Amino acid sequence: MTQSNQSSVWHPFTQHAIFPDFLEIDRAEGVYLYTSEGQRIIDAISSWWVITHGHCHPRLQQAARDQIERLDQVIFAGYTHEPAERTANALVDLTADGLDYVFFSDSGSTAVEVGLKMALGYWHHQGIARDRVIVLEHSYHGDTIGTMSVGERGVFNKPYNPLLFSVDAIPFPAESNEQVTLDALESRCREKADVAAFIVEPLVLGAGGMLMYSPKVLREMKLICERYEVLFIADEVMTAWGRTGTLFACSQADIVPDIACYSKGITGGFLPLAVTMCATRIFDAHYSPDRSKTFFHSSSYTANPIACAVAAANLEMWQEDAALDAVRKTASMQGEKIARIATLDSVTNVRQTGTIVAMDIQVPDRGYLSEIGTQLYLKFQKSGILLRPLGNTIYVLPPYCMSEEDFDRVYDVIAETISDLTRTQFS
Amino acid sequence: MTQSNQSSVWHPFTQHAIFPDFLEIDRAEGVYLYTSEGQRIIDAISSWWVITHGHCHPRLQQAARDQIERLDQVIFAGYTHEPAERTANALVDLTADGLDYVFFSDSGSTAVEVGLKMALGYWHHQGIARDRVIVLEHSYHGDTIGTMSVGERGVFNKPYNPLLFSVDAIPFPAESNEQVTLDALESRCREKADVAAFIVEPLVLGAGGMLMYSPKVLREMKLICERYEVLFIADEVMTAWGRTGTLFACSQADIVPDIACYSKGITGGFLPLAVTMCATRIFDAHYSPDRSKTFFHSSSYTANPIACAVAAANLEMWQEDAALDAVRKTASMQGEKIARIATLDSVTNVRQTGTIVAMDIQVPDRGYLSEIGTQLYLKFQKSGILLRPLGNTIYVLPPYCMSEEDFDRVYDVIAETISDLTRTQFS
Repeated sequence: MTQSNQSSVWHPFTQHAIFPDFLEIDRAEGVYLYTSEGQRIIDAISSWWVITHGHCHPRLQQAARDQIERLDQVIFAGYTHEPAERTANALVDLTADGLDYVFFSDSGSTAVEVGLKMALGYWHHQGIARDRVIVLEHSYHGDTIGTMSVGERGVFNKPYNPLLFSVDAIPFPAESNEQVTLDALESRCREKADVAAFIVEPLVLGAGGMLMYSPKVLREMKLICERYEVLFIADEVMTAWGRTGTLFACSQADIVPDIACYSKGITGGFLPLAVTMCATRIFDAHYSPDRSKTFFHSSSYTANPIACAVAAANLEMWQEDAALDAVRKTASMQGEKIARIATLDSVTNVRQTGTIVAMDIQVPDRGYLSEIGTQLYLKFQKSGILLRPLGNTIYVLPPYCMSEEDFDRVYDVIAETISDLTRTQFS
Repeated sequence: MTQSNQSSVWHPFTQHAIFPDFLEIDRAEGVYLYTSEGQRIIDAISSWWVITHGHCHPRLQQAARDQIERLDQVIFAGYTHEPAERTANALVDLTADGLDYVFFSDSGSTAVEVGLKMALGYWHHQGIARDRVIVLEHSYHGDTIGTMSVGERGVFNKPYNPLLFSVDAIPFPAESNEQVTLDALESRCREKADVAAFIVEPLVLGAGGMLMYSPKVLREMKLICERYEVLFIADEVMTAWGRTGTLFACSQADIVPDIACYSKGITGGFLPLAVTMCATRIFDAHYSPDRSKTFFHSSSYTANPIACAVAAANLEMWQEDAALDAVRKTASMQGEKIARIATLDSVTNVRQTGTIVAMDIQVPDRGYLSEIGTQLYLKFQKSGILLRPLGNTIYVLPPYCMSEEDFDRVYDVIAETISDLTRTQFS
């Protein structure tokens, strides 16, 4: 146990005054994290949604080992390397026809920043004045200024409000509200000619509270965008790599986004990497003897060869059948186990999309800052389960190698913890 | 040679219509890149300013190898690990007293975004309305919306202008202009009480054209900020890790920034990682039983253990004498070699800060998009040297392991290429 007052580390999304202690993880394997004091913890949220086939997967380890011996890093302007080309080819192969180009960056946030810039550049370079972005209520797209701007305005970004650009938000398409969403999108697109793009998390809004909506609505939203020539940006940073039951969420709606953002599981959770993929016409709008139309975006580490080598090994696994089999098995096990939780009185809105399961705890104090989130988190941790509720919303988002025994353990702990907490609080 | 029309990769800062070909790099060692066809290239710009001790350094390789076997990734909210703690401790040890906390992210851009958010949060959480940022003319801080906003407005970011927040720019402190800069900074701070922070690249403005200014002015700017309680953000993403002749540029001005951003060489150029360091009072402004004061920033891969293990090994090298000895040797060799170039008629404004040397070629067509930049780049590449002029500005920014023989080769090629080009163009 490391005390924050002995450390100089400032942790992300962490109020140090409330969480002064940090479990020190020494090693990991499959679904397990091991603390330096020997405690075993089941990683039931894939370490912030990144681990897919399990921690320290031998094929990813081997790919990294091999690459480290050859080439650490090379500038990616004017130069290329085999791991990047192999990653790009596999991405084009695995994604839907129409996502033709691959731009590398380092994180989900930068993948979205790149997507927004591609969209703005697409219009600008054609001399068309379109620069507004439409977003979905409750969205989360990252923590940089650009990605916060297209996310829900609230507690996450209030201090930075003066720096955010304005967007048009349309209501979340809850089951009872789908037509309202579609009408709002359509009227916004029709009323003004300035809309450059619509950005959306397909099927599941992650940090917004694991809010789920139907593939039918996703498809309708895409069709509206097509009608008004509005670029459709799919932020699949959380939803890709099997999470929603298919390799990518968009395929469930049988749509191809104009721009798609991927990160997290792209390296199987091993090393930071992200890509933004796009249609040829977006690349073409930047392709010109006029240098000022260059896509001026980079980070020094764009397409780091070691991260790309691991990504390529991971994508190779997705080109085999076993990976999606594991996804299906995980999704089916999640469905079985959640059934029992759904009967608890204090649990409401139990929902599942593929391998992701979420539920809300009925408490008066809701939302991301809900007190109960903290209490649940600490109790789960004490029981050896890594779960990180979003306020009063508990979700389980496991790697695809969790055994039935471990699923039982996770859901036993959830059931017990909820019963204990709600008994104490409301008796 | 990979043709872009056979590849789906969209390269950073690259106009594919002008540069359709990409050299494929297969392996690297020390200052050398090797193409898959066996050509050897001298990496005279440290692969976009990231490589410090040389490519594929054995100590960095070993650190990565070891970490890969233990722990690939773990969520960094609520959890920690030894490589992150070791990296943070070494950073606090190596940097000036007063930089007490370490926040991890993935790239230079995100390190700056974090710095801006820390500054805004610092004031917001104290209930003080300060949200303007002052910047230096010609600055470059990254390519995300937030970092473009604090950078020079121009060709890099024109299409995205509608999304950028407004800032106050003060003139660059060229030698003849220093007092103008200082007066502008002082009057801006004095006139309005809304200034949250001043962000600056200390001593050398990188992508803006390797523009150099004196430690004396840097110091004066810091003192003005202190006088008006304006937070001073040092973007040392390019200038740190020995580039300017000292480990950090700020130490030459004997100042301690309130917030400092580091990336690039933090892993010796091996894997993407970045940190934002800050004074205790900035952490303290976020430290509260009030959850809404949490610093809501993260990326899933925050403090990736493999990248941190490599960073820790790299920082250990900076805690030994040999690394700074190599910096001094590199700086001194650069000084000797540039002397000869300075005598060429078509070369002007030869300048050096530590290991960085830059010069301008006298052509009518100046600036980043200058035609001559492309011509020089391709001719250097053909001669086996990786140099990437910023328009008509050639700079040499080598790893600290370049031999005298290789320096001679680099400067021979520069001299020949300049002579050839200027003879052809202006005869």
